[in-house]
Amino acid sequence: MSAPMASLVRPSAERARLLISCADRPGVVATVTRLLFEHGANVVDSDQHTEPDDLRFFMRLEFDLPGLPERLGALEAAFAPVAEQFGMQWRLIPAARVKRMALFVSKQDHCLQELLWLWKKGELIADIPLVVSNHPDAREVVAPFGIPLHHVPVTADSKAQAEAAVLELLRAHQVDLIVLARYMQILSGDFIASFGGPIINIHHSFLPAFVGANPYAQAHSRGVKLIGATAHYVTAELDAGPIIEQDVHRVGHRDAVADLVRIGRRVERTVLARAVSWHLEDRVLPHGNKTVVFS
Amino acid sequence: MSAPMASLVRPSAERARLLISCADRPGVVATVTRLLFEHGANVVDSDQHTEPDDLRFFMRLEFDLPGLPERLGALEAAFAPVAEQFGMQWRLIPAARVKRMALFVSKQDHCLQELLWLWKKGELIADIPLVVSNHPDAREVVAPFGIPLHHVPVTADSKAQAEAAVLELLRAHQVDLIVLARYMQILSGDFIASFGGPIINIHHSFLPAFVGANPYAQAHSRGVKLIGATAHYVTAELDAGPIIEQDVHRVGHRDAVADLVRIGRRVERTVLARAVSWHLEDRVLPHGNKTVVFS
Amino acid sequence: MSAPMASLVRPSAERARLLISCADRPGVVATVTRLLFEHGANVVDSDQHTEPDDLRFFMRLEFDLPGLPERLGALEAAFAPVAEQFGMQWRLIPAARVKRMALFVSKQDHCLQELLWLWKKGELIADIPLVVSNHPDAREVVAPFGIPLHHVPVTADSKAQAEAAVLELLRAHQVDLIVLARYMQILSGDFIASFGGPIINIHHSFLPAFVGANPYAQAHSRGVKLIGATAHYVTAELDAGPIIEQDVHRVGHRDAVADLVRIGRRVERTVLARAVSWHLEDRVLPHGNKTVVFS
Amino acid sequence: MSAPMASLVRPSAERARLLISCADRPGVVATVTRLLFEHGANVVDSDQHTEPDDLRFFMRLEFDLPGLPERLGALEAAFAPVAEQFGMQWRLIPAARVKRMALFVSKQDHCLQELLWLWKKGELIADIPLVVSNHPDAREVVAPFGIPLHHVPVTADSKAQAEAAVLELLRAHQVDLIVLARYMQILSGDFIASFGGPIINIHHSFLPAFVGANPYAQAHSRGVKLIGATAHYVTAELDAGPIIEQDVHRVGHRDAVADLVRIGRRVERTVLARAVSWHLEDRVLPHGNKTVVFS
Repeated sequence: MSAPMASLVRPSAERARLLISCADRPGVVATVTRLLFEHGANVVDSDQHTEPDDLRFFMRLEFDLPGLPERLGALEAAFAPVAEQFGMQWRLIPAARVKRMALFVSKQDHCLQELLWLWKKGELIADIPLVVSNHPDAREVVAPFGIPLHHVPVTADSKAQAEAAVLELLRAHQVDLIVLARYMQILSGDFIASFGGPIINIHHSFLPAFVGANPYAQAHSRGVKLIGATAHYVTAELDAGPIIEQDVHRVGHRDAVADLVRIGRRVERTVLARAVSWHLEDRVLPHGNKTVVFS
Repeated sequence: MSAPMASLVRPSAERARLLISCADRPGVVATVTRLLFEHGANVVDSDQHTEPDDLRFFMRLEFDLPGLPERLGALEAAFAPVAEQFGMQWRLIPAARVKRMALFVSKQDHCLQELLWLWKKGELIADIPLVVSNHPDAREVVAPFGIPLHHVPVTADSKAQAEAAVLELLRAHQVDLIVLARYMQILSGDFIASFGGPIINIHHSFLPAFVGANPYAQAHSRGVKLIGATAHYVTAELDAGPIIEQDVHRVGHRDAVADLVRIGRRVERTVLARAVSWHLEDRVLPHGNKTVVFS
Repeated sequence: MSAPMASLVRPSAERARLLISCADRPGVVATVTRLLFEHGANVVDSDQHTEPDDLRFFMRLEFDLPGLPERLGALEAAFAPVAEQFGMQWRLIPAARVKRMALFVSKQDHCLQELLWLWKKGELIADIPLVVSNHPDAREVVAPFGIPLHHVPVTADSKAQAEAAVLELLRAHQVDLIVLARYMQILSGDFIASFGGPIINIHHSFLPAFVGANPYAQAHSRGVKLIGATAHYVTAELDAGPIIEQDVHRVGHRDAVADLVRIGRRVERTVLARAVSWHLEDRVLPHGNKTVVFS
Repeated sequence: MSAPMASLVRPSAERARLLISCADRPGVVATVTRLLFEHGANVVDSDQHTEPDDLRFFMRLEFDLPGLPERLGALEAAFAPVAEQFGMQWRLIPAARVKRMALFVSKQDHCLQELLWLWKKGELIADIPLVVSNHPDAREVVAPFGIPLHHVPVTADSKAQAEAAVLELLRAHQVDLIVLARYMQILSGDFIASFGGPIINIHHSFLPAFVGANPYAQAHSRGVKLIGATAHYVTAELDAGPIIEQDVHRVGHRDAVADLVRIGRRVERTVLARAVSWHLEDRVLPHGNKTVVFS
């Protein structure tokens, strides 16, 4: 088995991201920015949002700190009491600690292709230790990128065993994130819970329209004038998880289902690539069944 | 009661439109264009479509014929046997016979405003003999256009009577087309059947997502990243009639329900105006629960 | 002369906006947010940007401060030494001090209509003390809004006098902002300098394509597949000032110049309305010949 | 050298396309459709347009004719006098005679990659006998598709020789169409004339804005809010040939030139793919410096 190719661009070792959510209270921003400043951090990007419904506050700060690898522990120790004071959920993430992403695919390989190509161009910063497929077809697409493809067939009878085998692979490769790049198997609630990390799916409709199977056939039958795609986090309920990104393309009476499929492929590629890129840069903060996206 | 203002632009008396649908058979186009040519018609626009699912053929021809008003009867008489030979549904419509359109509105007047503006600019070619509203609020918007507003309040108890009164108005004004420009009453199946003509509604979501009441609140709650609007013909089943036009606009986590309402107003105005303009120019051919739009 | 109608929604007396630009230095955000916090301000919106080319830092803060009208002076006095320390350009603007906006129009009234309608709906928060036109045509559009229209004809010979008369009107009405809503006269450099405040123009092309006269005819002649509109601040050089907003719409070979004009009207309305709304909310920070837009 | 892969989908041997342009005269459509009908052709798609400026008429018919390969000669012979009668320019093209397309590329390979993907998926129906590049870099991209890459370096001194060598290759491979998929050499007028066939270029701006070199840097410097791409036929005048397709994507103050380049890559890929696909299906009819696109 060939060694996985490293992604081509690595973020600076001195860059980090701080993600915060807490009840909105005066002084949060002042306190956090003061603390970063006193530790010598230079904020290069900052975004914040207060949700009007529940007054939940969200913040994302990106900063450079000389000597970050050695000083990260001290910074975390200093931040902990502040976080406790404000009741924050928080994460401090060195940008150089790139996420380990597994790509799942079935027969349709256009989304897989797009992600691999953007990854190779350095537009998606991640390690990709493996691709998982219930079909052998993707081998040809994956081969030039030097990433192993694990073919794990799934039948109604073998589903539990197959999921166990995949979980074992994910653990062995220390995977942080699963991307379902047109993986046409429904993951069990047990699998989702056991994996425990985020799973991004691309659904080939403008959710919540056309949940479930064959959305392009559903769209054609309803006679819609736009078709869409939706990238969302996977939850136990089918096609109902928090939406990260959506887009649409115009169609008309001349377009048969096969045309919707073809046009839709481009929308799917674009929408999934944007969602994955935002996730990898820690720009997506889930909030109940919705997302705050600091894009 | 002030006399309704005439629309500002009238199509030429020599222009007509021929709409055809029939089972697709070789020779349809050749036969029809030959017949028009032999009668001296000059085709200025032509569009056709064959639906792959059922091989139904649709055609729209726009042509100029000198002396059309006097020669229309002869043309129709000549066309009838051709139509019978091919089993056609067909309509031959002088462009100068502009449609008589009634606008229905409740409190939200942005769609009404947009249609009246465009009508006054000559972008919508129609007669508008009356506006019907279950609220008196629209009077101020309608007044400068010299069109009578009929205030017909509707309550649960008075609904049948109100619908009867409205039907009487429509008959008195010889209305061809109803446009529901944010009219927030559900029309009964009886009303739809009794009126008998086309009714265009603007629904403030990207159907089939968010059928029914408060679609912007539904959209906000689901956390979608695009909001939309749908113009469709009204059928007895709520929000399920043939779609004429749809469009969307991007929203994000910063947008509260009030922002979706505000952003959505622009989408609604645009989508409804396009649908009405296409209908008035006989560019929309219903086909089962879908539409062929020769835009 | 009728009294100008007040705009329908007034911002809270406790809300203010702080706009800052300075060379990027560590500690700016921490210092500013600390100072606001210590004065009891609650930041409700915040956005920032550092321009990579010249490391210029831009920030917009929106905050609520109980008793703002009485405490504004003290806050400004406290902020002045901070601003000096960091070499800031800054403005502290009570949201309730709404801008006084003059609308200029010639014969095409669609942009004027759109702005007046959004203003009446409360989507544009401004006072509109007058409309200026070199034609009398707009009177009918303006009348229902209770705003005086000043008809100032302009000929090659009378241009200097006409500009002097308009400047006198602007001074008398204490105008902060001019919006050229399809005003087809080129303002002289002297006029621009004498007025001294911001002037927003809508140009009916996707600048820098098709500078100057008749951009739709230019676009048709070049055979472009999209037409656009550009809202920009006016400078002495024609159509070359900082761009605030742009948008486009698809066109094709079926569209004659008249169709481009009609389609373009909708783009112009949308683009100008967005630009004016952002300016009124102090979301547009000029930076050389470009703009930072915190939309 | 490996043998070029055949494209994966071949059109039916019975399908053909008829392209016509002539001065608009009554009876053109009737005569043409009658003739096709009498020869047993079944029209499956038809589109027409009359240019209002010069009353030039354009028509594209797609039809099935059983036994087409044997009957093509007879059909052409029958059509010739009709064409002469109406003064038509015309082409009768069997769909199965797929075009032979050469792809030219320099270092940026995203457009090449996209075209090769779509070709392999059967979305672009063509033979691709060779790829030409002035750099060796594209070899890795091209290799998996089994298409030979010809590396023809170009310097100021060697340009004439290089163009001669490329022309020789094009002749040897019987190339019908050149696609410049980010080929960063300007082709000489002599080369364009000697090749004689259509050449499609992708320019990375919304032409006519930002003609020439470094359009993304020009766009960033002007502060535009949308960036675009333009696919056009190449003529001797740089970036001035007939436009086939354009599209844009929104950018903002946060986007540096490198971001415009990255965002623009997706627009370029989409726009070029659409233009090439329309050309391959004979949907683009040049008309002076403009195009009629029956998409």
